[in-house]
Amino acid sequence: MKQITSSQNPYIKQLVLLQEKAKARRQTGTFLIEGQRELQLARKGGYQIETALFVPELISEPEVKSLAGRQTELIEISREVYQKLAYRDTTEGVIAVAQSKSLSLADLQLGENPLILVAEATEKPGNIGAILRTADAAKMDAVIIADPKGDLYNPNIVRSSVGCLFTNQIATGSTNEVISFLKSKKISIYCATLQDSALYHEQDYTTPSALVVGTEATGLSQPWRDASTQNIIIPMQGEIDSMNVSVAAAILIFEAKRQRGFK
Amino acid sequence: MKQITSSQNPYIKQLVLLQEKAKARRQTGTFLIEGQRELQLARKGGYQIETALFVPELISEPEVKSLAGRQTELIEISREVYQKLAYRDTTEGVIAVAQSKSLSLADLQLGENPLILVAEATEKPGNIGAILRTADAAKMDAVIIADPKGDLYNPNIVRSSVGCLFTNQIATGSTNEVISFLKSKKISIYCATLQDSALYHEQDYTTPSALVVGTEATGLSQPWRDASTQNIIIPMQGEIDSMNVSVAAAILIFEAKRQRGFK
Repeated sequence: MKQITSSQNPYIKQLVLLQEKAKARRQTGTFLIEGQRELQLARKGGYQIETALFVPELISEPEVKSLAGRQTELIEISREVYQKLAYRDTTEGVIAVAQSKSLSLADLQLGENPLILVAEATEKPGNIGAILRTADAAKMDAVIIADPKGDLYNPNIVRSSVGCLFTNQIATGSTNEVISFLKSKKISIYCATLQDSALYHEQDYTTPSALVVGTEATGLSQPWRDASTQNIIIPMQGEIDSMNVSVAAAILIFEAKRQRGFK
Repeated sequence: MKQITSSQNPYIKQLVLLQEKAKARRQTGTFLIEGQRELQLARKGGYQIETALFVPELISEPEVKSLAGRQTELIEISREVYQKLAYRDTTEGVIAVAQSKSLSLADLQLGENPLILVAEATEKPGNIGAILRTADAAKMDAVIIADPKGDLYNPNIVRSSVGCLFTNQIATGSTNEVISFLKSKKISIYCATLQDSALYHEQDYTTPSALVVGTEATGLSQPWRDASTQNIIIPMQGEIDSMNVSVAAAILIFEAKRQRGFK
């Protein structure tokens, strides 16, 4: 088996670029997955694992094979190389190179009565990760990121989603593409925005529905407001008039699920 | 007016300790508040501001007086000193020394039909801040931290609460003290925990209620389960079986508020 013990190895330097640069991820169509559970969830989510790098003192070869699949190339690495690649402060000892997916709207497989979360231009990776985590818990039919501010295979998103980047059906597209997609599928658009809005809990989300949340800073863009079936608002009764976007998304998602009887 | 231009000044060193050490905050009964909105909210919340330090190039003396109050001692500081004290990456130019409050359960002023959030032993300051922000938005009657893992005047909590540390009625106490308090007030205890639990949205929170959430890692302790009026669970239908504690708290809080008609 191939072994790499130097963090100056050219292949390792390439992998560091995958962690650090969206461009490198785009050009190669690959990204890194760290952690055993994340790797499991990625495989379950249909991601192709090209290579698994592991530290033999931390995890055995059979364990890595079982996690990464029989077809995957295995490379033994030293602790030093692992430290260089690892983004988190963990000692799970395995990092994998996976092929990214297209995340095209056309690839979404929706049932008869879908419930979808749309987040427009969310900037903080931690917020996207938190939204994906909640969407997984609620088993949303899909999460769509409109006008994304970066690629979704950013290590901060991978990490903060605790693997839910792989368990959700996810698509990205420009705001106009996403609006056209929702309209073509006859999915009602509920925009979380202040203007002309109704109380979120007095709307009916039991038919095909998209819940749309915007950035913390500027809210939803005009095209969303123009396309909105109904603007909705979560009543704020305190001193502060804003809410974390992932918290707002969770409140809307679980109200819709409640109305649907969690089916 | 007093001026301090060296970050080696002994008083400035004392203030750095207030940022860094819970012990220093406890011994002096003071803590630091950074930012104009935070300072406004703290005064509105009845906090006594002892001293306001400001950078004259960034904020004028009349502005600081208006923010901090006429009784407050003002000190001009250099940008260097400001950088030394500032916890956030902002240029608002004002940092204040405030007196902490006792946060005693006995001081809570509750109406006839209170809705309370209890968080037990929450470790991550960011989660406590997020919970306080949601509790403010929902105008909860009180937030109680049971068995706190540190003092609430930790700069990470002050920051992540975006001032909601000052806008909520907050108390702390041991788990046993909090349980006795709730029982003495005849407040129903709804524990978010798996065992013997009912669906959260099928319970009635329109009478005096406490929603109790535990740590991410271990959940609620046995005394809470023993004291529980009813255990409740948010259905999880995805691959991941956990939820961020501040997201779970938000879902429970807004379901209770919904049932109460946001009154």
